[in-house]
Order: sequence, then structure tokens, then C-alpha cells
Amino acid sequence: MIAVLKQGTTTQQRDSLCEWFRNMGLEVHVSEGRYKSIIGLIGDTSGVDIGLLESLSIIESVKRISEPFKNSNRKFHPEDSVIDIGGTKIGGGNFQIIAGPCSVESREQIIQVAKNVKASGATLLRGGAFKPRTSPYDFQGLHADGISLLLEAKKETGLPIATEIMNANDLDLFEDIDVIQVGARNMQNFDLLKSLGKTNKVILLKRGLANTLKELLMSAEYIMAGGNENIILCERGIRTFETYTRNTLDLSAIPMLRELTHLPIIADPSHATGLSRLVEPMSLAAAAAGADGLMIEVHNDPEHALCDGAQSITPEQFDTLALKVRKVREVLSL
Amino acid sequence: MIAVLKQGTTTQQRDSLCEWFRNMGLEVHVSEGRYKSIIGLIGDTSGVDIGLLESLSIIESVKRISEPFKNSNRKFHPEDSVIDIGGTKIGGGNFQIIAGPCSVESREQIIQVAKNVKASGATLLRGGAFKPRTSPYDFQGLHADGISLLLEAKKETGLPIATEIMNANDLDLFEDIDVIQVGARNMQNFDLLKSLGKTNKVILLKRGLANTLKELLMSAEYIMAGGNENIILCERGIRTFETYTRNTLDLSAIPMLRELTHLPIIADPSHATGLSRLVEPMSLAAAAAGADGLMIEVHNDPEHALCDGAQSITPEQFDTLALKVRKVREVLSL
Amino acid sequence: MIAVLKQGTTTQQRDSLCEWFRNMGLEVHVSEGRYKSIIGLIGDTSGVDIGLLESLSIIESVKRISEPFKNSNRKFHPEDSVIDIGGTKIGGGNFQIIAGPCSVESREQIIQVAKNVKASGATLLRGGAFKPRTSPYDFQGLHADGISLLLEAKKETGLPIATEIMNANDLDLFEDIDVIQVGARNMQNFDLLKSLGKTNKVILLKRGLANTLKELLMSAEYIMAGGNENIILCERGIRTFETYTRNTLDLSAIPMLRELTHLPIIADPSHATGLSRLVEPMSLAAAAAGADGLMIEVHNDPEHALCDGAQSITPEQFDTLALKVRKVREVLSL
Amino acid sequence: MIAVLKQGTTTQQRDSLCEWFRNMGLEVHVSEGRYKSIIGLIGDTSGVDIGLLESLSIIESVKRISEPFKNSNRKFHPEDSVIDIGGTKIGGGNFQIIAGPCSVESREQIIQVAKNVKASGATLLRGGAFKPRTSPYDFQGLHADGISLLLEAKKETGLPIATEIMNANDLDLFEDIDVIQVGARNMQNFDLLKSLGKTNKVILLKRGLANTLKELLMSAEYIMAGGNENIILCERGIRTFETYTRNTLDLSAIPMLRELTHLPIIADPSHATGLSRLVEPMSLAAAAAGADGLMIEVHNDPEHALCDGAQSITPEQFDTLALKVRKVREVLSL
Repeated sequence: MIAVLKQGTTTQQRDSLCEWFRNMGLEVHVSEGRYKSIIGLIGDTSGVDIGLLESLSIIESVKRISEPFKNSNRKFHPEDSVIDIGGTKIGGGNFQIIAGPCSVESREQIIQVAKNVKASGATLLRGGAFKPRTSPYDFQGLHADGISLLLEAKKETGLPIATEIMNANDLDLFEDIDVIQVGARNMQNFDLLKSLGKTNKVILLKRGLANTLKELLMSAEYIMAGGNENIILCERGIRTFETYTRNTLDLSAIPMLRELTHLPIIADPSHATGLSRLVEPMSLAAAAAGADGLMIEVHNDPEHALCDGAQSITPEQFDTLALKVRKVREVLSL
Repeated sequence: MIAVLKQGTTTQQRDSLCEWFRNMGLEVHVSEGRYKSIIGLIGDTSGVDIGLLESLSIIESVKRISEPFKNSNRKFHPEDSVIDIGGTKIGGGNFQIIAGPCSVESREQIIQVAKNVKASGATLLRGGAFKPRTSPYDFQGLHADGISLLLEAKKETGLPIATEIMNANDLDLFEDIDVIQVGARNMQNFDLLKSLGKTNKVILLKRGLANTLKELLMSAEYIMAGGNENIILCERGIRTFETYTRNTLDLSAIPMLRELTHLPIIADPSHATGLSRLVEPMSLAAAAAGADGLMIEVHNDPEHALCDGAQSITPEQFDTLALKVRKVREVLSL
Repeated sequence: MIAVLKQGTTTQQRDSLCEWFRNMGLEVHVSEGRYKSIIGLIGDTSGVDIGLLESLSIIESVKRISEPFKNSNRKFHPEDSVIDIGGTKIGGGNFQIIAGPCSVESREQIIQVAKNVKASGATLLRGGAFKPRTSPYDFQGLHADGISLLLEAKKETGLPIATEIMNANDLDLFEDIDVIQVGARNMQNFDLLKSLGKTNKVILLKRGLANTLKELLMSAEYIMAGGNENIILCERGIRTFETYTRNTLDLSAIPMLRELTHLPIIADPSHATGLSRLVEPMSLAAAAAGADGLMIEVHNDPEHALCDGAQSITPEQFDTLALKVRKVREVLSL
Repeated sequence: MIAVLKQGTTTQQRDSLCEWFRNMGLEVHVSEGRYKSIIGLIGDTSGVDIGLLESLSIIESVKRISEPFKNSNRKFHPEDSVIDIGGTKIGGGNFQIIAGPCSVESREQIIQVAKNVKASGATLLRGGAFKPRTSPYDFQGLHADGISLLLEAKKETGLPIATEIMNANDLDLFEDIDVIQVGARNMQNFDLLKSLGKTNKVILLKRGLANTLKELLMSAEYIMAGGNENIILCERGIRTFETYTRNTLDLSAIPMLRELTHLPIIADPSHATGLSRLVEPMSLAAAAAGADGLMIEVHNDPEHALCDGAQSITPEQFDTLALKVRKVREVLSL
């Protein structure tokens, strides 16, 4: 961490600041210039409140050289984390496809889709029981009934289940769920993250629409600080000025996160683009960019899906997609 | 609402779609072109799920002509709403300044700041007890103790209190709080919004960093759908590519929201800019743009504030600001 | 095109507006609602000035149903355009890699890099002679000398040359250049586009940092309106709030543009990410998303490149990249 | 400037880098940490190519502490610049309103509007003769004829003229024009900026839709590096995800630029919002934020304006606006 002192700072002020840093266990190096002094801080600065520092009258600016995230930081954990989802591994070379409908609608629907996607190579089943919808007048999900139907589909097919939580008070319902998803709109619902940090569930943490990669990692840090290190990160599109696609899938996030963290990283092209015909090309692109997995909406009757039908593909389309994704993965290991 | 049908749609398909719309109580008008047909829908379309519609194979595109928000819509409620906060009114020409520290830190601090800002003309006291912080390693607020200290400051000064909630489970603690703030990061925490819709508290709803005005109004709609119409909207800066300021205060949101909704609209220049020296000019600008109020961070010792010190102004600076804001308000009523 | 009339519009006003539309050769369909009337316009509306229409007092809003671009629109030209660059074809299944240094620096450098990239499978040579730099104090390129060196490299290797123009007054210098690049910052330099429309050169048009796909196509339209239809579009990253990467490569632009236009589409991962270590994954991703080509910065001594060294890869890295890209391309044709 | 060296850099490599910096006339300070070394550079670093530095293999990251702009930097020129426009001064407490139609359409129109806005207190006349339009099919301006009509209006009213240039080849036509405007889309048309740097004209430089304040100042730097210091900066809205307004007027840019530069700063609420009914509140807000002037579109018949009618106000509306703006200005000097 680098702190630049304002012109006119006295030696005494500077020394007292340096003393304060040393008391925090940091090494302090001072460079004196004609107009300004620069203080270099070396050591674990993740506990230094940058807002507090910037508020001091003698400080012109403060810049972090090292990242504020610790537990998720690859520097302190060089090997890829491999997350175990009831025997199915993700990360460290293990690639998985999570597929299923946007919402669980009925027993027939979820079991049919589960069988279809399993046959095509999906290794986890997704399906929304609690749905965050922009409008209070839109369908909000089947809630507890949806969870039951997902568990029936699990029993029927053996596929582990991934589904979204919106409220920590519902955690009891998720006891037999394998992967708990935190949606983009809840990425900075810090109370929810803290609650999930106290469980030992696998958490699928989606990047918020306007959140930086650093903030995504800080949200992972909230969960990890509670003791739960089973986290999968998910890029699902960010908000930009472009309107032809619903969001902009930021695929450079994949190799960039790979460098910054040891956690597995997947992509969700369905929500990112909002258009079923863009799901295959963006799935292949995400795989080519090095993703550890994909999350894809598949519906046996997308035309009549209760939500987000426009972005769901059919089981047949998924079958082709999954095949091509496997071929792209082979190229990467050349 | 306008639905454009794809080339090749048969007359039968078109008629059956029109029938479906009529069954939803909508007037249907069809324009036949050489290549495409356009269906115009007139009536209350707020219940039509646009995602579902877009997913039909015969639909090329769907556009809403009228807004999906109802309870907050000025069209159905032409007069400004005036919200009563324990006798202090906001909206419909009533302007209020909410001031106080980012975080409640101690009895002395909160009472001193409360007295200072009251003397300068603030009519509500703010102060954070539950603090959403990007990093789990930063100060998170005094929680229940912070609420108690705020209530002491209320007793001492008579100022109504505004403070942020992060978890519906804490609602009991907010019984004597006058204005419950929903922070930007929770603007689409729909479960929290639903819980607040069941109370009769005044809710201060902040716009999310990447949320459109339409989404802000849809979130207000979540609260209003539950029966609580006591909502104040707050513009607090959106996320853009500019890095000199923390966020970009979108002041055109004020006159734009004024047109769209009857709810009061305030601005928070402290969080938007993140820089104390920009608070005065942006407060004056917000008042000049027609805001119904301001929310401003004031700290008696900003240099040592536990969070966001860089954006807090001193009581003396606040005194000058409040005076100038009143003068700008006078210009508007010329 | 749909025009919604304001409440209170008289029948006479409406009829006179409809008459005006009919005089422009458009079919007019009116839907009367209780509160508003909707006018549907069918025909070639690309000449209708939407700003003018919106300014009429009886108009509430206007929405285009069809796109304002014509010559570049796939609807009127369903087959992929194949652009011929001195015998090298791009588009319609033909994939090409343009590679070379950010700036031409010396005879040795450009010829060496040209030989290297040709050996690895590049089919065009890039190299900047006129460099748009944010700062007037940074290196601006070798100008005419740079063009000469590029032409020497062409003579030596047979590779066609792509290089950027910044000023239509320099067009004479580009006589033997095969592909003239319009940089992101000049995408809406309409006078430059018009000048290029009068040539028969192949134009590589880069998307501006804050430009929508529609605006990119409208800029292509400027060139095509002048008679030059030899245009290659290039996605090179858009500006977002993320700071770890220089820009955000919007790969969904590739399949989206594919749908909207018949022109070839390539991607430039070097400028988009600004980081050499992200060039390979993003190149593979762009190929997987269906790009017709790539533009990649390669430098034989990236550490000492005069500009943008941080984003250049070595000839060895390029060799591996080009091989993998070919393999990914094979997967797409499965 | 701060350079952080990678772990593993040898003492020899470090010393040779320091030597290189010293040869550039910079003071060099080294802080040695356990894992990394930090080099602090003090002196004029505006000539250091940050891209080149970042490309060195021993460098982890480079951060500028001081700004890369020099001539426009307030640090080296603490007093406000006052620009003289044919006797009309702007900056340093002098406030001016530039008003007039989007496009010059006819002799009658421009002279009528000129007389109207002068009577209401405008001190410069604007009017477009060269119009940058997104679509080649839209009206592009009267060109030389438009310039002639503006000069007639100047003769008639005595108002100095501000109008946009799109091509340096047209400079001869601007000989009697008082203020040459560089539009947002040309803010980084560096060749145009260089040409304007060789004139002694007053240049009104508009911020690009996706350009940072730093980039705006670097573009001013291009003009100033040529010797022309007569520059007025203009905030005219940036591109964000919000769609209710055309762009987002970034008013915090005004106090922020005030701090960074000595150049005058004005705002253009007409282009920023695209909506005539938002022009008054945003004009008042810009004045309250401390702008040195405003640029406002006024048309005597906005309903039939040839371009951007939706954002033009009438002379009557302008009269009220100008009066209120003067009153807001009085509050600032309290």
C-alpha cells in the first residue's frame, strides 16, 4: 500500500503516521520528494481501512498494491481449488455443466428436463424455486414445493441440484440441496453471505450486474471469512449501454479471475444474453476462455416457460451444444 | 403494449393470440403490413409477463408503451404524495434535509452531531447502525447499540431518525425508528422489500448502482403492493466508467422521476461523489434540479470517522451548505 | 415504425399526420385506444428522422420496429458477404488472422515480425504508422515512413497489409495498402467515413468504446452509402466500470452482428484486454463465438515495444495461439 | 509515479532501471520489502510512456501519482483562466450563456432566434452548420451556407458565434467564427485537435460520451501543446445504462474539473438529456454546481426543427430559464 502525503505535511505529522502504521505491524518506507512524500507500506494491509486513511488531512491519496482479498487470493493458495459436489468435482481441470429450466413448474416438467439434460451430459440440475423478479406482478416461483420437486428429480436421476436462495430464513429448506446459488442481485446482500458462511454447503456466487471482479472476490471473502470455502464463482453478464443483448457477458473475467483466485469459475450465457439463439456460441466461447463449467437454461417447452423462456434452449439444442463444448475443451488441453 | 409478429405467422395463429389477449381484458388492434403484422394492446398490461410473450415462436418483438409500474405511477395519482414523518412532511413542496454521521460511533458523537445539524436546519438525523461494507474486514456498525444511541439522540433533540436496515429479521429493533433506509445494494433484495411492504414505516429506497429508474420504481412497487405507500426515493449515484468520483450522481433522475411518479425524491451527494469537497456543489445542484430533500453525511471529526470519512463534511460546512440550499430553493419558486 | 399519439390529439391532427406519412410512401395503420392512438408505419422508414417526429407536440413516443440500417442489413442481403483482400477472402466461412506489431518501429522489426507471423499462419500483416494516443506526449507513429516499411514487408512476405488511417488527407499514402483501418475513436468521424466511402479499399471498421452495435452498423452505412461495400467490422472491447481489464471484450456482439448484418466480423483481443496473457484465451473464445477473423498484436520484443507492449504477445506465443484457433474452428463446423 | 517491481527482480536489474529513470531527469527513491520493491519517481513524469514501462518483465505495476496533463493542470497555473471571446469573457467568475438552434435552417430562423435569445440575456449565439448525425440518411447541415447565415446573425445582433467543426479542411470557413466547437464524437480526433492547436481561435471542447475527465484534459492538452490555450471545456452527458434520458449529465464533473484545471467549464443540458422539459432543471443544477456557462438549444419552432427538436426549448422558456439561472448564480456568491 502506498500513501502519498500532501504538500506541507510536517515531519512530525509524517512520523506520527509512520508510527501508527508500524503499530499495525507494517513495514514502513518513506520517499521524500521536493513537493510530496510517499509512504510505502509492506505487510498484511487487508485490515487497513482505506476510507479512514483517505480521510486524514495530511493524505493526498492512497493506493493498494496488493489485493484486499485474502482467503480467495491465489497468491496465498497457488493451486486450483477443487470443489466436491456429492462426488462430482469442479475446478482444477474438472468441467461440469449445470442445466435445467429457469423455474420449476411441475413434477413432469422438471423430471423430463432432468432426464434429457443428463442424457446429453449435464452433471448437475438447475431449476428455480425462489425467483427474483423485477416486477412484483410476475411469477415468483413455487417455493417449498419447487424444492420438493427438485429433490424428486434428484432421486429419479441422481443429478445433484443447484437452486437459488433469496432469504437466509429459508435455509432449512435447502438441507438436501447440493449447490446453493446466490443470484446477481444478492451478491452484496452481506447478511445472506454471512449466513451462508456458517454452512458447509457449496455456494454458487453470481457476479452482480454492476460489480467489479474485486467486489465479487470480496463477497466470496464474506462467505470464506465464516469458514465455508466451497465457493464457485459465476460470470453472468454485466450491465452496459448495449441494448441488443440483455447484458454483456464479460468473458475476459474468466482468465482474469483465474489469475486472481483459486476458486472455480463458470459462466451463465443464458441470463447474460437473454436470447436462446446466442446460448450456443457464448457457451463455446466461455469454454474456450477456460471456464470450469457452464450454467445453461434448458426447457422442454421454452415457448411456454413461465419465465425467461426467451433465453431457454430445447433439450435437442442442448445436446448439440454439450457435444461441441466437449470438443472445445479438448482443444484447450492440446 | 405492441407485439410485432414474425413474417410467416398464419392468420389462425394470429387470431388465437388475439383471443388470448382479449381474455386478459385487453383491447386488441391489428395492423397488417406486407411482411409483418403489428398487434396493439390497450388496457392494463402490467400483469402481462413480457418474458413469456417474447418466448412465443410467432413473436418478433414486444414493446411496452405504458409503464409496468402502477401504484407509484403519476398517471394514476397525479398529485404529489406528501409523506408524514412524525409531523415532518416531505414531498409536494415540502423540502427536508437528513443529516448525520455515516456510522453511529458513540453517545457523545451522535448527540453532538444531532445538535449541530439541528441548529443548522436539518430536520432528520441519519446515522448507520448496520453498515453494508464491501470488505468483511471493515467496521460493520454498532448494530442494536447503534439503534439505541440514535433513539437517545432523538429524545435529546426531537429529530426523527433515519437509519438503514440490512435484514428483515432486525425489524423489531426499528420500532421507534422513523425512516427505514434500504441501501443501494439491497434495492433488489425483494424479500426485504416485501417485509417492509407489510409495515407502515416510512421507507427511504435508494437507487442501486446499476439500476434504471424503471427498476427503482418497480422496487417501490414491491413495497406498495404490500400496502405500504410511505416511500421516499433517493438518487445516490450510479456506476459509470469515470474514476475521479466514486459514482456519478445522476441529477436528471430527479426531474425524470418527478414526471413518472408522485413519490418524493431526494439526493445523497455524499455517497455519490465520495469526496467531502464535492458535497456542497452537488447539494446545491440537487436542490436546483428540484429534489424534495437531501441526505448528507456530517461528522464532528471527519478525519477520524470509522467509515467514509472522506465524504463527510463538518458541522460548520453543513451550516453554510444548508443556508445556500434554502436560497436556491427560493429561486425555484420564483 | 410505431408512433404513439398523446392523449387529447384531435382527429384532424391525427389525420394530417397520417397524410404526411402516406406522402413519404408509407403504409399507415391506426389503432384507437381509450386514452391514446397508435400509428403503425410500414415500408422503408430509414429516411424518417426520428428526432423530428419526437419533437411534434402530438407525439408521445416513437419506436422503430425495423432497423435504420439498410445496405448492411442482412434482411435485404441474406448471404454472408465475402470480402476479397488481394486474393485473400474473409467472411462466408473464410477465416483470417491479421497479426503484427502495434507500431511499425524499424525495417528489421516489421520484416522479422511479418516473417514470423506468416510462418505461424497469419494471412495479413498489421502495424501502426499513424497512432492515436491519448497523450500528445506519447509516440505518434512513423507516419509516411511507417507506410513505406509496411510495403517493404509486403514485398518481402507477400502478406497484404492492414493499417490505420487518422486523416482523410493522408489517403494518397494508402494507395498500396490493402485494408484501411478506422480506429475506435474515429468510428463516428463521419467526414472520414464519407471519404472512405468514395474509395474501393477494404475498410476495417472498429467499434467505438461506447458505441452500440446499431451505431456501428450506421457507421458502416456511411461508408456503404458512398458506394464502398468492402467493410469488415471489428469488436475491440467496450468501456465499462471494470478496471482489471482495459476494456470489456463484448463477444456476444459477434453472433448478434451475424444476425443483423451480412458483413464479416472479427475481434481484437489485444486492445480489448490490454494484457498479453489474456490474448490467447480471448482469441479462442472469439473464434468459438463464430468470428470471421482475429486481429492480434505480435512483437518480437514486446518488452521494448514503443507502445502497448503490455498487450503484445511473442511470435512463439502466437504460433501456439494460431494452432489452437484452427482447432477451435474445426469444432464449429462439426 | 510509483513502479512496483516483481518478486525475483535482481539488484542489478533494479539498479539499471533506476539509472534509466535518473537519466530522464527524475529523482528515484527505492523501498525494499520482503517480497517486492517499490520505486518512487519524483519530477516531471508526463513524458514517461506508461505502456512501455508496464511492458518490462521486471515491472508488476505502475501508477501515476501526478496527473499526465500539464498545460491544463491547475497545479502549475493556480488562477482560473479567463477566455476572451471578442470582448465577452468566460471563466474566473464570468458566466455566459450560449444559446441558439441545433441547426441553422434559414436566414429568418437564425436571426429571429438570435434576437430572442439576446433579449433574454444570452451572450453568444450557437447554431450548427456541420452536423454529426448517426445516420447518413439524416439532415447533415447547410455547411458553408450555414456559416454565412450565422455571420449575418452576428452582424445583425452583435452576438459572437459558436459553431461546430467536423473537418480541419473546413478551417478557412471559420475565420470569422468566434468559438469553434469540437463535438463529443470528435473529442479524440487527434488530428483535428492538432490543427486547432495551431490556430488562435477559442475552442469549445466537448467531453466524449465514454471519456473520462482525464481523457478530456488530455485532449485539451493536444490543443494546448500546439500553442493555443483558449479552451472551454463542456460536459454534455455520458453514456450509461439508463434509457429514460438520452445520456447522463455528469454534473459532478464541474466541481471535479474545477479542481483539476484552470480552464472554464460549461454544461450542455440539451444534448445530455435529449428532452426539452428537462433543460430548465438541469440548467439550474449546472449553474448551482458552479458552471462558468451553459449551452442551450433554443428554437422558435421546436416542433418543426430539422434535428433534435425534442430537446429544444422555446424563446419564452429560455427567458424564464435565463432569469432563474441568474438568481441561482447570486446564491453562489453569498
